[in-house]
Amino acid sequence: MPRGQDLVSRRVRAMSGYTPGEQPTDSGLVKLNTNENPYPCSPLVVEAVEAEAHRLHLYPSPMADALRSRAAEIYDVRPSQVMAGNGSDELLAIVLRACTEPGDVAAWAVPTYSLYATLAETVGARAVEVEADGGVIPRALAEAAARVTFLCTPNSPTGRSIPLDAIASFTRDAAGVVVVDEAYVDFGGKSALSILGDHPNMVVTRTFSKSFSLAGLRLGLLFGHEDLLAELAKVKDSYNVSRLAIAAGVAALEDRAWMGSNVARIRATRARVTAALRGMGYAVEDSAANFLWVDCAGKGGGKAVYGKLRAGGVLVRFFSGKGLAQGIRVSIGTDGEMDRFLSVLGAG
Amino acid sequence: MPRGQDLVSRRVRAMSGYTPGEQPTDSGLVKLNTNENPYPCSPLVVEAVEAEAHRLHLYPSPMADALRSRAAEIYDVRPSQVMAGNGSDELLAIVLRACTEPGDVAAWAVPTYSLYATLAETVGARAVEVEADGGVIPRALAEAAARVTFLCTPNSPTGRSIPLDAIASFTRDAAGVVVVDEAYVDFGGKSALSILGDHPNMVVTRTFSKSFSLAGLRLGLLFGHEDLLAELAKVKDSYNVSRLAIAAGVAALEDRAWMGSNVARIRATRARVTAALRGMGYAVEDSAANFLWVDCAGKGGGKAVYGKLRAGGVLVRFFSGKGLAQGIRVSIGTDGEMDRFLSVLGAG
Repeated sequence: MPRGQDLVSRRVRAMSGYTPGEQPTDSGLVKLNTNENPYPCSPLVVEAVEAEAHRLHLYPSPMADALRSRAAEIYDVRPSQVMAGNGSDELLAIVLRACTEPGDVAAWAVPTYSLYATLAETVGARAVEVEADGGVIPRALAEAAARVTFLCTPNSPTGRSIPLDAIASFTRDAAGVVVVDEAYVDFGGKSALSILGDHPNMVVTRTFSKSFSLAGLRLGLLFGHEDLLAELAKVKDSYNVSRLAIAAGVAALEDRAWMGSNVARIRATRARVTAALRGMGYAVEDSAANFLWVDCAGKGGGKAVYGKLRAGGVLVRFFSGKGLAQGIRVSIGTDGEMDRFLSVLGAG
Repeated sequence: MPRGQDLVSRRVRAMSGYTPGEQPTDSGLVKLNTNENPYPCSPLVVEAVEAEAHRLHLYPSPMADALRSRAAEIYDVRPSQVMAGNGSDELLAIVLRACTEPGDVAAWAVPTYSLYATLAETVGARAVEVEADGGVIPRALAEAAARVTFLCTPNSPTGRSIPLDAIASFTRDAAGVVVVDEAYVDFGGKSALSILGDHPNMVVTRTFSKSFSLAGLRLGLLFGHEDLLAELAKVKDSYNVSRLAIAAGVAALEDRAWMGSNVARIRATRARVTAALRGMGYAVEDSAANFLWVDCAGKGGGKAVYGKLRAGGVLVRFFSGKGLAQGIRVSIGTDGEMDRFLSVLGAG
């Protein structure tokens, strides 16, 4: 009798799948592990969701028209250059599904967002991972001649940004699609949207999960040339974004002042925590995102520090991958949460 | 300079993509084209959405735990046998992504839900479409020896159901996965969930879009063997179902009485409209779903009748595919909407 493994493809059988950051049900924990925004979303979003909840018996607009129109006005592109997704994760998957066939190369510098590897595995793309310090595009990434290249900027988990001129020059020479993943850009990066018009092979992805405090909503945007977007649309689920997400996204874009004020608070907390950690002897780089990469090499390594914090009720992210085991990634929470983090870290 | 088409795979370039039913912005139209439920969702769903709108800054449970637990209790399976999706469309796509490699066979009888063909094209599967009257499983479908077979029951656009013993016998002999798509089952079909435990290669998909009046929410469920579901989970987006959809789905399942009462109204309207159409000389089969397939062969064909209705402010679905151009598919709306439909149809 066939079992689960016999029913799936060899490729999927061999996969281990993506491990998302822990989403504990224990609400007593200080949760600094998945780069959520500690502040609530705009009240306009809550109102929009409540209003739309009365219209759920009808399908949504297949291309999320209200949202793409509003986003186009705000980001100064045409509506045909905007595609909405069920989180930017879905948009990253759509690019790989549309642009690669099994065996084609997908490439990125490491360390970076580990989902790229899982998504590439899912479509059978050959992953070329180039080691880099972040903040630069290594020459080997161009040599990979990938069908799809991911540039995460500001990068996770390092918090470093890639300069726009490096992105422009890399994209100009690339034969394939270059995905500029700007999940964290509102916290301090410079957006490649300003150079999007020069590069028909560039797409820029954004998420509402971080700066807009909407991780639980699942909503992302992709910007790119309209010819490319017409192709990407062929492989997206026909109604991929719900009525609630469309309405919430429009409202969130209306209230960018709310988002900006939360971002300002997070940046202030980030500066304070960076200084405090350095004062405690930790090597911490300046971060352009809503998290810090904390080198724990002289402090027993990432796993030990993660364990100590966890025992003290503070959940941060530990990655066992190459070059990452020496540190931890710490999301920026409220000032109170970060005081608790610093206090547990510094204890005994 | 590369254009959109050069950047995507040859396979995607050749695709035409799925054309969802029209979602008009003109609210004066009587909309009977995408099998939406004309009645609103349960007030418990609205309340649940409003409450959850205040927790959107946190990620959802990756496997929608609250929903799969509640669904498991209600449908008498284990939570590990339930997977939630961003609409059942996403779940159908996930099965193809996990179970096929390019060139593998995916099969179904036609006419049926036309998305199967688009999804198969997206993953590069070889589609085997077997012509059938519906309500039976043609022998050629077994001979296709597909990695994935779709059985839509009750089927769209015919409204016919496949008997459970035929599904059981087909699935027992199948080497690949058999997907029993029960999008419309609450309107009159017999569910294959009762025989799921006998077939480790069977999955059953359900949607909240039809009987639960939640097309705008995007939520579906897949039931199957836990070994198979563990494999399918590897290729799903990590947070594929939003907090709002999880909360709404749990509330909808709590209020099955609300759903049942709407289904009863729709069935009563369906019986009345079926009789009225027959009285007008249209050949209409008994339907087990929330729509009718209306043969217009003696009335100028499907396109002419579609056009007449459209001109009279009533939107129904016309399919140009083989064997379908002679009829129209009409969703069951409110009694008032169906009176309007019958009146425009019978005029002049």
